[in-house]
Amino acid sequence: MDAIKGHEDKSETRAEFVQALEARLGCEIVVTGTDVAVYCRDWHGDIQSDAVAVLRPRSTAEVQDCVRAAIDLGLQVVPQGGNTGLVLGAVPDAPDRQVVVSLERMTKIRSLDADNFSAVVEAGIVLEDLKEKVAQEGLYFPLALGAQGSCRLGGNVATNAGGVNVLRYGMTRELLLGLEVVLPDGSLFEGLNCLRKDNRGIDLKQLFIGSEGTLGIITAVSVKLLPAPEQVATALLALGSLEDAITLYRRARRQCCDLMSAFEFMPPIAFELAKEGMPDLVLPMQAEYPAYVLMELSGSGLVDIDDLMVRFVEFAFEEGLALDGVIATSQAQARNLWLIREGMNEGQAKRGKHLRTDISVPLSRMAEFVSEVEAKIGTEMPDAICVSYGHVGDGNVHLNVLPGSRGDVDEQIYCAKQIANEVLDRYNGSISAEHGIGRLKKDDFSQRLTDVHRRLLESVRSAIDPALTMNRGCQIDL
Amino acid sequence: MDAIKGHEDKSETRAEFVQALEARLGCEIVVTGTDVAVYCRDWHGDIQSDAVAVLRPRSTAEVQDCVRAAIDLGLQVVPQGGNTGLVLGAVPDAPDRQVVVSLERMTKIRSLDADNFSAVVEAGIVLEDLKEKVAQEGLYFPLALGAQGSCRLGGNVATNAGGVNVLRYGMTRELLLGLEVVLPDGSLFEGLNCLRKDNRGIDLKQLFIGSEGTLGIITAVSVKLLPAPEQVATALLALGSLEDAITLYRRARRQCCDLMSAFEFMPPIAFELAKEGMPDLVLPMQAEYPAYVLMELSGSGLVDIDDLMVRFVEFAFEEGLALDGVIATSQAQARNLWLIREGMNEGQAKRGKHLRTDISVPLSRMAEFVSEVEAKIGTEMPDAICVSYGHVGDGNVHLNVLPGSRGDVDEQIYCAKQIANEVLDRYNGSISAEHGIGRLKKDDFSQRLTDVHRRLLESVRSAIDPALTMNRGCQIDL
Repeated sequence: MDAIKGHEDKSETRAEFVQALEARLGCEIVVTGTDVAVYCRDWHGDIQSDAVAVLRPRSTAEVQDCVRAAIDLGLQVVPQGGNTGLVLGAVPDAPDRQVVVSLERMTKIRSLDADNFSAVVEAGIVLEDLKEKVAQEGLYFPLALGAQGSCRLGGNVATNAGGVNVLRYGMTRELLLGLEVVLPDGSLFEGLNCLRKDNRGIDLKQLFIGSEGTLGIITAVSVKLLPAPEQVATALLALGSLEDAITLYRRARRQCCDLMSAFEFMPPIAFELAKEGMPDLVLPMQAEYPAYVLMELSGSGLVDIDDLMVRFVEFAFEEGLALDGVIATSQAQARNLWLIREGMNEGQAKRGKHLRTDISVPLSRMAEFVSEVEAKIGTEMPDAICVSYGHVGDGNVHLNVLPGSRGDVDEQIYCAKQIANEVLDRYNGSISAEHGIGRLKKDDFSQRLTDVHRRLLESVRSAIDPALTMNRGCQIDL
Repeated sequence: MDAIKGHEDKSETRAEFVQALEARLGCEIVVTGTDVAVYCRDWHGDIQSDAVAVLRPRSTAEVQDCVRAAIDLGLQVVPQGGNTGLVLGAVPDAPDRQVVVSLERMTKIRSLDADNFSAVVEAGIVLEDLKEKVAQEGLYFPLALGAQGSCRLGGNVATNAGGVNVLRYGMTRELLLGLEVVLPDGSLFEGLNCLRKDNRGIDLKQLFIGSEGTLGIITAVSVKLLPAPEQVATALLALGSLEDAITLYRRARRQCCDLMSAFEFMPPIAFELAKEGMPDLVLPMQAEYPAYVLMELSGSGLVDIDDLMVRFVEFAFEEGLALDGVIATSQAQARNLWLIREGMNEGQAKRGKHLRTDISVPLSRMAEFVSEVEAKIGTEMPDAICVSYGHVGDGNVHLNVLPGSRGDVDEQIYCAKQIANEVLDRYNGSISAEHGIGRLKKDDFSQRLTDVHRRLLESVRSAIDPALTMNRGCQIDL
């Protein structure tokens, strides 16, 4: 009876909150009822949460209004971009006390300065829209990831997104010139400059990059742009091992200088999974080799990228590293090679629940690391399948594990994760190379923090958000 | 009498401080007396300050001891690397209450992992020593600046140093993988990983980069390394104007992709100043053109850098941008071209006190900006000489002003600075593109801070250093 009473109380409070929010912000901004569900579901569809309401501001001033309204009502704020994150950073975890603030209506390019290779963009723009719009001016925004058709730039900044071009262009952090942020008290940090070099002391914007909405809501971003790569060469090479792939990467780093834009490792099972994920896919070679690398060179102007790729592939054969390979001779062929990479992900999804990791270790120890984890999993879970792939040039591997038919799926996932993390800790690796911490990895993160690190994080977070309004429950518990 | 008494009191206190420091840390660590002076003088020799003592720890643990001793005695700490900064960031300003902690004895390379393109280095290593040591392994640390024979890596990190290769490799911030920092309470932040990608939430090391010693003492650094550029091509091109130089930069950005490593602008007076600075210098061409660009391409392996330079210079002539030019055909010739750039700085120094600026504006407005400032200075100070040069590819110009013979030098410098800053503010530029804030630019910085920005800076600094032990008086007054 008490429990029910408690529940009734909460319902009333939620209704009162909604009423107060609508009165203050207008029904145009406040989403309630069944429309809330889609904002409270994670990207994989594993988790369905709830919130008091979703607020959809159309301008920076409206974001400030939303934050101030939440503060006045004692509500917490969960900032959200495209909600494509993989660690539950934008999924509410206290449905009765949280509002989601979605940036999806703030999608404008405020200015584009082609002569400065920069643009100022609202945080809600979809990454692919930004890439397409700057491409029309002969420019290029290099961030590239699977979710780019849905993810939004503000979320990319808040999670410091990675992707397939990091080895050349860096993480999102390295692609930014400035930020505009609504702070936890509703005030505005105006840091939207477009200067390539600006060294005025402590760079506060760095705090917000990767903070996953815990320090404020990013409302606009100044981005660095580059000349569009007019030439792109793509190759798929078959190799003898992951170790050979890493050796090849090191050679490519020297032979191709800074013109390599992607170097993705795939195991043989990639082809099988890609076929499952995309049955129409035409595979360019049979999976008869232990390892594959999808490599891309790109550039423009006076550099001959096609020629460089041909000479590098020749070099790879001469060195005995490449055993087989194809160079795409058309955009369609290149697209097809990338579809293997994407199809592999879809194929994994079709196999049902599985362990997804996002690990980094020093490049010099990656082959050893993967082989140790795979051997242990092979021993302890003989019918599970390891799918280790990813951005090996960055030392980043997604060492995923598809559970076998024997035993409980969740138990197998837990067991595989424990094995991977135990080895990872001995290699001084990271449990999150690119996805962030969110709510999903909070415990694993917390367990590995030193006291000093934790104290610093707590001090910084309390200094900027003393009332803990912003994304409480994300990254660390305070 | 009171004043003298006060003075005597202070002297006694200083002697007591020294005694206490020696008792606790040992005479091996504590430098006093006349040996202190050199640590309290700025790089240009304009300022001579003083300190209670200079502490010279040999290990991270000894740095912690030094900080704890200072705290216990109520002393403030001024961290110092090579003391080559240009904004008085490492020069004490409260001689009776401050100790300098010099990192000059911590110069070890702790580890070098060629296969991971990384190294872990103590903060006191001289930048050039680091560059030379990694070069022996066929690797490259790209940070390059005039002071590299004296500056120390920890100082480069604390000031987020820039230099001539920023357009390709970024500021110091972008060259780091991890930091070890002794915090203001003497505890140790252990963030020395060597992972290329590590996205575990808020990246605390970013706070220390550019903090100029206000948040702690950087004791060791993990750095990113690259394959050594085996091919370097250098050219000096004569152009019609700064505007043409910027157009040429944009073309080079596209035509040479990511293979351009320097693009330095020089005005005609550069040649005269270089000759004054280095009388033996052989000039490759007469100063008959309005503008010059020193350009460098570099790379390794299968890319033909010399050929690319020849073709780009041809392109620059065809486009009507280059009016004259030389391509270095030997390392000695290339070195000679760079000597013009360095000699120009020495020549300015020989002309005596002058205004030095370190300005950035968007590249799209730089020509307009420089021309507006130079015109105003020409009108108001007809016999002053403007020397505008620098890293134009980054939008960074050192718009220096040599005072004329009429009028007081300091007044002229002040007047020229006011003119430059007034125009700069209208262009939304930065008063410090690469040198930092220190004590020299603190007022100019403070005047331009928004309330929100100031509050954030104060919160962060108080959160990490509540007792204000670290470099009080630097960057902002609290």
